[in-house]
Amino acid sequence: MPSHAPASRELHLNINMLHSGFVPSAWRLPEAQTDALFDVAHYVRLAQVAERGAFDAVFLADTAAISDQVQYRSINALEPTLLLATLAAHTRRIGLIATVSTSYNEPYNIARRFATLDHISAGRAGWNIVTTADPASARNFGRDVAIDHQERYARAAEFADVVKALWHSWQPGAFLGDKNSGYFADPDRIQPIAHQGKFFSVHGPLTLPPSRQGHPVLVQAGGSGDGRELAARHAEAVFSASESIDESRAYRRDLHERAAKYGRGPNAVSVLAGLTTIIGATEEAAYRRRDELMDLIPLEYSVKRLAGTLGVPLESIKLDEPIAQNLALPKNGTHTFFNTTLAAAKRTGATARELIREFAGGGGHRVIVGTPEQIADDIEHWFRTEAADGFNLMPDTLPGGLEDFVDGVVPILRQRGIFRNEYRGDTLRSHLGLGAP
Amino acid sequence: MPSHAPASRELHLNINMLHSGFVPSAWRLPEAQTDALFDVAHYVRLAQVAERGAFDAVFLADTAAISDQVQYRSINALEPTLLLATLAAHTRRIGLIATVSTSYNEPYNIARRFATLDHISAGRAGWNIVTTADPASARNFGRDVAIDHQERYARAAEFADVVKALWHSWQPGAFLGDKNSGYFADPDRIQPIAHQGKFFSVHGPLTLPPSRQGHPVLVQAGGSGDGRELAARHAEAVFSASESIDESRAYRRDLHERAAKYGRGPNAVSVLAGLTTIIGATEEAAYRRRDELMDLIPLEYSVKRLAGTLGVPLESIKLDEPIAQNLALPKNGTHTFFNTTLAAAKRTGATARELIREFAGGGGHRVIVGTPEQIADDIEHWFRTEAADGFNLMPDTLPGGLEDFVDGVVPILRQRGIFRNEYRGDTLRSHLGLGAP
Repeated sequence: MPSHAPASRELHLNINMLHSGFVPSAWRLPEAQTDALFDVAHYVRLAQVAERGAFDAVFLADTAAISDQVQYRSINALEPTLLLATLAAHTRRIGLIATVSTSYNEPYNIARRFATLDHISAGRAGWNIVTTADPASARNFGRDVAIDHQERYARAAEFADVVKALWHSWQPGAFLGDKNSGYFADPDRIQPIAHQGKFFSVHGPLTLPPSRQGHPVLVQAGGSGDGRELAARHAEAVFSASESIDESRAYRRDLHERAAKYGRGPNAVSVLAGLTTIIGATEEAAYRRRDELMDLIPLEYSVKRLAGTLGVPLESIKLDEPIAQNLALPKNGTHTFFNTTLAAAKRTGATARELIREFAGGGGHRVIVGTPEQIADDIEHWFRTEAADGFNLMPDTLPGGLEDFVDGVVPILRQRGIFRNEYRGDTLRSHLGLGAP
Repeated sequence: MPSHAPASRELHLNINMLHSGFVPSAWRLPEAQTDALFDVAHYVRLAQVAERGAFDAVFLADTAAISDQVQYRSINALEPTLLLATLAAHTRRIGLIATVSTSYNEPYNIARRFATLDHISAGRAGWNIVTTADPASARNFGRDVAIDHQERYARAAEFADVVKALWHSWQPGAFLGDKNSGYFADPDRIQPIAHQGKFFSVHGPLTLPPSRQGHPVLVQAGGSGDGRELAARHAEAVFSASESIDESRAYRRDLHERAAKYGRGPNAVSVLAGLTTIIGATEEAAYRRRDELMDLIPLEYSVKRLAGTLGVPLESIKLDEPIAQNLALPKNGTHTFFNTTLAAAKRTGATARELIREFAGGGGHRVIVGTPEQIADDIEHWFRTEAADGFNLMPDTLPGGLEDFVDGVVPILRQRGIFRNEYRGDTLRSHLGLGAP
């Protein structure tokens, strides 16, 4: 084993349960259940398949607004913490990570909901902290646009501080349940947090003590400077979006350096890179699957999406002309995939129609098309070169793409000794190799 | 059957899953599981017993703050919507009603969480609307005291309007899932609600369509004028707290009259009266059980609670002196039980020690001590005299008191033809005899 892959490192796998799958046309395949997005049984099946694969966690992304793409594709519909509370009853070991925004919630409520999920699941909860930039969400909460970027992240950092303090407002030994004395709890060990900050005043304490994993795992996905700083301070796992090994290594190193400033070692935070897989028994079959999926994406949808991404009028998209050299994405630093793809299109003189095809399947994350062996090779390479500690998988279709991964790729990763054969612990924290907080 | 009990009326039963039971000392009985309040298995058992009894619903009360009684008794700890999402997986037919406050939440989030619970449970969700008056909750959300009573209810009414509008922001036929055309949904049938009110601006639409029961059942428990008006406008079931048949009949009539102003008939809202049961195989055994439970309530707790309820210093409580004639409860109109008990104590010259014993077991709701037959008699009498459409049961202990009710009282109610032998529908709305909203 090369020196840059210490024996103690362990690959982490996480499934992003994006309704019918990552590819917009996934719901149109003959085998797809079109209303899967509203059907808890669909998510139960995904969670059970992932647990069969001994994945670290299932993950639910979220936006508290309807996607404007709903005319053409499946969306995230169900509220994630509720859905995971149901999945807790249908699974035993797998971690349960939900996305909740710090911009449109109160820290007391969120501390309590994740603490509850953590008790319900016996220590398997994780919170993916997002700050929510989109204007559609803002309009559902009394605003025209989102709070300014920097302020959003300042609020998120304080929000997370409050939540963590509440999670530990019951000290060890606070719960007594002493039938003889009649004392149910020791009020001296259940203390207010009396937080008074810039954004929040929260007295506390919480209504319940820490769970068996100490507290829910904190997850984050920020690519911007503010996002990285928030991750460095609070996150125990990070979902990253990197196109190349070099980019991902640089991101991971930067994150470790930032975390060190907060007294946190490199093992305190795992980097899980976003990865879409399109799997076939042969490479040819995989590309055939890809082409079939791409052909099912309506052109109308792709043109609207391209215009929306570029921030240009629909009419300005000329399908069969080369991409204009002055086209650029609105600046916000999170769309590496689009920037890279756009730059390549300009360089090669690709038409809008050709660019659309590249855009259509992706969405800020890397896509691999290939056999289980080829996908395992890629994953192993990223892992051993320390470009990532694991992957946040976004299969092309669900449940099919996940089943193909668990049945095809996972056994190879196990043969190569980089992924667990079975769970060794019962909590999300134990799967991620994190100590008690 | 007397004319005042039309054949179409049906008794409704609801279980208030108050952790270890309604009596503060319930957790101290030898058979009690002291940490039941944190244990989802406890609640699963309660829900399954209630479902075996064909109850309309399980219900979770809630306060988003820790009870100051936790030193001496079990409390509501877990967040109710999450807990019910788990219980949805362990039950098939029973309704699931959670309490959530309109004062410390955003309507978009609440609309979405209950819509999600409604989908997860296939149409069994209910929302108990509360406005939250206590200062401890206020301090967890950036305030020193609660919002003023009238403003709280004005906010609640607008909050409920917004939630209902969001629940119907997907019109029938909005979801297409048409694999051939590639259209997933019809955006013309998914419309913003564009609400601009005094308290909220919410654009919408929601991320999901109505569930099979139309929308979650709205429940309320307001005794004040503002509370009754909110119930008259929005509630489909009301939890009431009446000490006598006359009082309850008057309350129910008043509610029907108020509802009529909003164009709602008397069948649009069911009155479920709060009822604590202490059941024994014989009347003597029931009173023995009551005495055992009362003896296990620490005097220290009772004195603190009495002083707190009266708003007087602890030292002013003289245990063995008659209750002072000038003692009165702080005016807020919701503590009928305390007022009645206090008045009786003054009239009879009872001591504080004697008053405490009356107070200790109660808490704003009626208590019956007796055999299953006696309890069935009482329930039938209230039902046939139209004092109530059903009961929100708060057994002395849980699960014991609920099991005794389901195994002892329910069969008698069935023999008498006033309670269903089995569920006829699958939704909470069908159990309550409510039409589509």
